[in-house]
Amino acid sequence: MREGVGASKWAFFRVPSQKSCQEAPGTNVFEFDEDTRVTEVEPGRYRSRVSERWSIGTVPNGGYVLSIGVAAMQQALAHPDPVSVTAHFLRPAEPGDAEVLVDVAKVGKSYSTASARLLQGGTERVRVLATFGDLLHAEGPTHIRGEPPRVPSREAPRPPRPSEPAIVQRFEMCLAEETVRWAQGEKTGEAEVRGWIRFADGRLPDGRSLLLFADAFPPPVFNVIGVGWVPTLELTVHVRARPASEWLRGVFRTRFLFGGHLEEDGELWDEQGTLVALSRQLAAVPRR
Amino acid sequence: MREGVGASKWAFFRVPSQKSCQEAPGTNVFEFDEDTRVTEVEPGRYRSRVSERWSIGTVPNGGYVLSIGVAAMQQALAHPDPVSVTAHFLRPAEPGDAEVLVDVAKVGKSYSTASARLLQGGTERVRVLATFGDLLHAEGPTHIRGEPPRVPSREAPRPPRPSEPAIVQRFEMCLAEETVRWAQGEKTGEAEVRGWIRFADGRLPDGRSLLLFADAFPPPVFNVIGVGWVPTLELTVHVRARPASEWLRGVFRTRFLFGGHLEEDGELWDEQGTLVALSRQLAAVPRR
Repeated sequence: MREGVGASKWAFFRVPSQKSCQEAPGTNVFEFDEDTRVTEVEPGRYRSRVSERWSIGTVPNGGYVLSIGVAAMQQALAHPDPVSVTAHFLRPAEPGDAEVLVDVAKVGKSYSTASARLLQGGTERVRVLATFGDLLHAEGPTHIRGEPPRVPSREAPRPPRPSEPAIVQRFEMCLAEETVRWAQGEKTGEAEVRGWIRFADGRLPDGRSLLLFADAFPPPVFNVIGVGWVPTLELTVHVRARPASEWLRGVFRTRFLFGGHLEEDGELWDEQGTLVALSRQLAAVPRR
Repeated sequence: MREGVGASKWAFFRVPSQKSCQEAPGTNVFEFDEDTRVTEVEPGRYRSRVSERWSIGTVPNGGYVLSIGVAAMQQALAHPDPVSVTAHFLRPAEPGDAEVLVDVAKVGKSYSTASARLLQGGTERVRVLATFGDLLHAEGPTHIRGEPPRVPSREAPRPPRPSEPAIVQRFEMCLAEETVRWAQGEKTGEAEVRGWIRFADGRLPDGRSLLLFADAFPPPVFNVIGVGWVPTLELTVHVRARPASEWLRGVFRTRFLFGGHLEEDGELWDEQGTLVALSRQLAAVPRR
């Protein structure tokens, strides 16, 4: 949630701890599905449309655009779950028509791997490399050293305001107040953001939507450098399980900011206490 | 260091705390450079050769094979440093001739991005997606929450034995004894491996060789499940700085093993105390 995002665009984030946590309205066509629909034009070539509903300012969220590319890959491959997805963001996408070109590298028994390129107006915006598998039938030994992040209670709902950026209307979030004090101009020095998230229209999260959720929290580095522009160069998400709840809890941290780069490590957990995704992105921090 | 590696291949690891830490012999042609040499055949197409010197058993190390692909990408692009590299391992490579096909996605002012496919006998083995930049001129704010791992002293050197796997001859490693007790059949339950590493022939590490170092330590999950086969599906390395010392210290950890997958997170630091690489891989853990 950061390509080309200027500081002023984050001004909406004034009352983060009271972000809407109300019940979702009933609906039949979910926004995420409508806005990531892909249609095969010929084998390996898909037509889609980048919606303006997932933007901050004029720039569509990177995780959202990635979700379109992965929707095309899912049509091209038999394995249902994206288990490891890497996107390199070349240029900001724009609302409007898009084309996805999928190149299958391998179709195996347990996994399939492919690349995808998302183009608009003949210009490549995002390049993706991903391996798909089947998480429903996954088995094996278990050893877990980690637990879901501490998050606030989901009380004090507040509906989104029409003045807020488009993407903010798509989610309900309850972020831990102490992790978003940058919104009041305070730098806590702790580059961590924690909280709840779900789709505002009640869509249940699945593996593909975790690519969006992994890029939907505000950058934790805002607690160190203040609100600014930290464009994502690369985002990798490991989908570890299919989410089993509507609400997800997430934590995002930056440990190493130096030399013009930072990493942002994320975890997403469902309400069953299952880690559903690990994410890491590399972002650039322009000199200021 | 694990594609197709059977348990018996790790038997060499009997005296890990005494792994050779002797002075490197002087040499002019370094093995890593010789064994990752690529020759342009035509624009975007490179010829190379996978050496048998970086194998365990019959299987070349994944990070080594990736280094060949990235050598071709470096020839194709003007930016010198691989800042974010992701490889998906489709099939084990084999010692012998190889071809690398590079497809440039973007050449920008600060970064360039490309894909590469490494083929042998017409069959794709590894697919790579990487962004390159220039770490020498990197600047920006600094905020660091992390420190180099605790590692043993580099005393008690022992030369590699001729009976050890080929790749073991290429490095000198001093691993913390308490992190490799699986070598004596003990499962400590702590999925962490820490220690020193350098090239045995004195080659200084650079950004590209960090891709190899990030895959050269034994899997920390051996401390949980014992020695076994944990094939890497995907490896991502963020090169954060050019290494400024011959020896590097590394730490590799697995926090989440379940559902047939594990992640392995790594850090590599140089002797100046600079984090030079962050790595993460997704590996499969076959049912047993």
